[in-house]
Amino acid sequence: MDIPEINQLVQLLAKLPGLGPRSGRRAALHLIKKKSALMSPLITALEKAHQVIQTCHTCGNLDTKDICNICQDPKRDRTIICVVEDVGDLWAMERSGCYKGLYHILGRTLSALDGIGPEDLNIPKLLHRIEQGHTTEVLLALNATLEGQTTAHYLAERIKEYKIKTTRLAYGVPIGGEIDYLDDGTISAALSARHQF
Amino acid sequence: MDIPEINQLVQLLAKLPGLGPRSGRRAALHLIKKKSALMSPLITALEKAHQVIQTCHTCGNLDTKDICNICQDPKRDRTIICVVEDVGDLWAMERSGCYKGLYHILGRTLSALDGIGPEDLNIPKLLHRIEQGHTTEVLLALNATLEGQTTAHYLAERIKEYKIKTTRLAYGVPIGGEIDYLDDGTISAALSARHQF
Repeated sequence: MDIPEINQLVQLLAKLPGLGPRSGRRAALHLIKKKSALMSPLITALEKAHQVIQTCHTCGNLDTKDICNICQDPKRDRTIICVVEDVGDLWAMERSGCYKGLYHILGRTLSALDGIGPEDLNIPKLLHRIEQGHTTEVLLALNATLEGQTTAHYLAERIKEYKIKTTRLAYGVPIGGEIDYLDDGTISAALSARHQF
Repeated sequence: MDIPEINQLVQLLAKLPGLGPRSGRRAALHLIKKKSALMSPLITALEKAHQVIQTCHTCGNLDTKDICNICQDPKRDRTIICVVEDVGDLWAMERSGCYKGLYHILGRTLSALDGIGPEDLNIPKLLHRIEQGHTTEVLLALNATLEGQTTAHYLAERIKEYKIKTTRLAYGVPIGGEIDYLDDGTISAALSARHQF
């Protein structure tokens, strides 16, 4: 396999999350075999997305406009801002269909190990949005990991001075989850947050 | 996530082997975040591969010429043809660096369940190559699966009339393999093919 055109394609595909060198080769082969059914449409879709997708100036979401649909939507509750790490988290929240407020994308979470400090996060814009005075609640929907929770605590501390409500998602047994397979941390969180049936 | 440009990209990425709807979303997001570092080079590589890669008229391999490098290489042993199912298998054989003959890509294997018969395989061209008279050995390097072995037996039968040697890869314990984790079929194959130490 000394064909530079294929090697180059394999190397780039292997950089996608969830793919490695071996699955990159399989993906490249699959694309070359399905030139008209898959490769051409993919090239078009990539070019289109490359052209039109941009980051929302207000919240950091991805859209085709520089102020995204969610930020512009008059039906959205503008008093609550849900802080997430990443656009993927925003998509997950939207799929649940239960949240009707605004969002703010941090971009990353604090991590001493990786040398990521508060200045690397999209925090000033969040505080600026709060300062404008429409916000009554900030929901910190960050991952239940060490980094996510460190970031949540840090943000809660920073938001304190604005005297607005700061909330976080509840911890507990995930829907469909089996007790036997849960880790100790989740069980202990679900126990201490137990409530009347 | 009602942005058609992103949805389209996610749907196409999810069709790659090894990716599904969820990992397609992650891949799309990763690409959009790394527009210049990954998305642009990937578009270029896909366009390049789409333009130049073609199928070798002789063996079915992929290359930038219509007779591939392997078929044209004067240093290759032209008396032996290794029959594989797919270009990916050819790449794997080449990576081993131990085979210096020619190849023939079948494209698929016989499968009664999927309704794939001999007419769906690239067999006539193989027989035509054998008829030209340079070939003294056909090595059937097909998967050790039901379909692969059915195909190998079928081909061995068809090749019989040309009075040339037909061989197959040896079965046995894979290098680095642990006996305890091997399936019964492999152990029984390795046992019956055991030889003097």
